[in-house]
Amino acid sequence: MRHALALARRGLGNVWPNPAVGCVLVRDGIMVGRGWTQPGGRPHAEAMALAQAGAAARGATAYVTLEPCAHHGKTPPCAEALVRSGVVRVVTALTDPDPRVAGRGHTILRAAGIAVTEGICEAEARDVQRGFLSRIQRGRPMLTLKLATSFDGRIATASGESQWITGPEARRHVHALRLGHDAVMVGGETARADRPGLNVRGFGPVRQPVRIVVSSRPLPELPAEGSEHGPLWQVAGRPEQFMAELGARGLTRVFCEGGGVLAAGLLRAGMVDQLIGYGAGLVLGSDGRAGIAALGLERLAEAPRFHLVEARRIGPDLMHRWLRD
Amino acid sequence: MRHALALARRGLGNVWPNPAVGCVLVRDGIMVGRGWTQPGGRPHAEAMALAQAGAAARGATAYVTLEPCAHHGKTPPCAEALVRSGVVRVVTALTDPDPRVAGRGHTILRAAGIAVTEGICEAEARDVQRGFLSRIQRGRPMLTLKLATSFDGRIATASGESQWITGPEARRHVHALRLGHDAVMVGGETARADRPGLNVRGFGPVRQPVRIVVSSRPLPELPAEGSEHGPLWQVAGRPEQFMAELGARGLTRVFCEGGGVLAAGLLRAGMVDQLIGYGAGLVLGSDGRAGIAALGLERLAEAPRFHLVEARRIGPDLMHRWLRD
Repeated sequence: MRHALALARRGLGNVWPNPAVGCVLVRDGIMVGRGWTQPGGRPHAEAMALAQAGAAARGATAYVTLEPCAHHGKTPPCAEALVRSGVVRVVTALTDPDPRVAGRGHTILRAAGIAVTEGICEAEARDVQRGFLSRIQRGRPMLTLKLATSFDGRIATASGESQWITGPEARRHVHALRLGHDAVMVGGETARADRPGLNVRGFGPVRQPVRIVVSSRPLPELPAEGSEHGPLWQVAGRPEQFMAELGARGLTRVFCEGGGVLAAGLLRAGMVDQLIGYGAGLVLGSDGRAGIAALGLERLAEAPRFHLVEARRIGPDLMHRWLRD
Repeated sequence: MRHALALARRGLGNVWPNPAVGCVLVRDGIMVGRGWTQPGGRPHAEAMALAQAGAAARGATAYVTLEPCAHHGKTPPCAEALVRSGVVRVVTALTDPDPRVAGRGHTILRAAGIAVTEGICEAEARDVQRGFLSRIQRGRPMLTLKLATSFDGRIATASGESQWITGPEARRHVHALRLGHDAVMVGGETARADRPGLNVRGFGPVRQPVRIVVSSRPLPELPAEGSEHGPLWQVAGRPEQFMAELGARGLTRVFCEGGGVLAAGLLRAGMVDQLIGYGAGLVLGSDGRAGIAALGLERLAEAPRFHLVEARRIGPDLMHRWLRD
C-alpha cells in the first residue's frame, strides 16, 4: 500500500477533477502490475495496473489507495474490471466519498466473492487525497498558502526589493509545489506589479497548472495559454464564493503565492488548509514589507492556527509546512 | 574529545569571565578522571579531573578542550599541574588566544617531555568557546538575539497580546538558553512595559544570569539580586560602546530578548552573532507587532545575513538557529 500511495502522489496536480490514485497488483509475492491515475484523470490506476498484469492478474491481490469506482463515466467502472480480471483480494485505503461511489465499489467486489480489506494506511491516503476530499466534501479545493520571508517575516525591503530573499533550491522547490497543485493563484495587485509566470519551469514538459488571478479589475497582458502556461482564469468576490466556483470547475488543489491582501482575505475566510514557509537567513526590519496584510485580530485566541508537519533545510533556507488544526 | 566538549558545555553561562573547558583523563582505555570548569570559573577542568584521578593520572592521556593555562592567577597553572601528575600525552582542541597563555601552555607541556597533539575537534571547540573567543579577540561578548513569532513574523496582536504565542516547551527552552548565557539583555521599553523576570526558572538552584537593561532613563523597580535573580546592570549609549563595556566587565555570552528597537540597533551595529527563532503555527497579520524595528535598508544586499545551523520541533513550535555569516 505504501508503494501504491507513492504511485498515487505522481498524479497530484495532474489529474483534476479526478482523484490521484495508485494501484499495485501482487501475485505469489511478486508485483505483476502497477498503475497510477494518468494525466487528465484517465486511464485510472486500476486499468493501467490490470493492463500491465494481463493474465497474471488472475489470483492476485490488488492494493488500491481509493475505493475502485462503481459508476460508468468516460471509462467503465474499475470495480467491474477488477472482478473480470480474476483478482481474489482487494485492499483499499479509503472509501470514495464521491456519492456516485460511496461504498458501491466495495459492494460490487464483495458481491463477486472477492475478499475486501478496507482502511489500510488510511491517514496517509487522506493526506494524498486532501484536495479531492475537499472538493467532494466541502465543495471547494484545498488551498496551500506560500510565504518566503526573512528571519523577521518580511518579504521585501521597504523599497520593494525581493529578488531573491530565498536561494535557487527553495525556488525550485516552489516549482515542484506548483507541479503538485492543479492551479497557482495570485491577487490582482501581484499580477499587475510582478506579471508573474505562474508556471512550472525546470521539470521538462508537464501539464501546466491553471493560472488564477483574483481581481475584479482588468488584468495586465499575461502570456497566452500553451505548453509553457496553463489556462488563465480570472475570479473575484468573496473567498467563499470564488473557492466554491473553483471547486465546481473541478479544481482539487490550489497553490496561493500572494499577495498579502489576498492571503489575508483567504485566512480570514478560513480557506487556508496548508501553510508553506521558506525562511531565509537575513533580517529586513519592520520597514520591510509584510507578506500577509492586516487581519484585524484583537486577541491571540482569534488567530487561525496550524500544526507543524515538516521542517527541513532546502539549500541555505528553512522550509516549514503546517496544516490547519 | 567529544566527551570533553560535552563536559565543557556544562560550564556555559556559569563560568564567566573564564572559558568553559572540559577535560577527560584516559589510561589503558579506561576513563580515570573527568572535569569541567566549575561555577564562577574555578577549579579549572584539568584540576578537577586530576583530583579525581589521583595516582591513576600517571601514564594517562589528557583530553582538554582548550590549551591548559600557563599563568599564575587565582589557581596555579594547569599546564604545570599536568606535568606534575605524570600524564604522558595531552590532546587539545584549541590554542588559548588569551595573551597570558597563547601557546605557552603547550610549550610547558612539550618542554616536560609530554607528547602534545593540537587541533582535535577544533571547529566544535570554537563553537563552545564562541563567547570567550569573542571577549578575548573582539573585546565584547558574543550576542544571541531571540525572536518568538507567528508564521508571519509577528510577536503580538495589534492590541499587544503576546502571551503566549509559543508553547510551554519553547518557553522552557528559552530558560535553558538563559542558563547557557552569562547575561540576559532587554531594552528599557521592554523593562518598563513587561517588568520581565530575566531569570532562569524551572532548573533548580542555578547561577542566575546578569540582568542587563539598555536604557538611559530611570528603570522601573525590578526584583533585587538574590538566589532568584542575578545582578542588575544598566547600560546605555551606542551598541559598540556598551558591548565593549560588557566585555570589559568579563561577560562572554549575552542573550538579548528584545525589544524591537534594541534588536534593530544591535543588528545595525553588526553586534548579533546568533539568531534563535521560535515559530508558532498561527498567523497574526500585518497589524500585529513586529519583533525587530526599522533597519532602514534600501537593498537586500545590505541586510545582515546568517546561516542555518539547526532547526527542530520543540513542542508544537519550530525552533531555528542561525549564525552570523
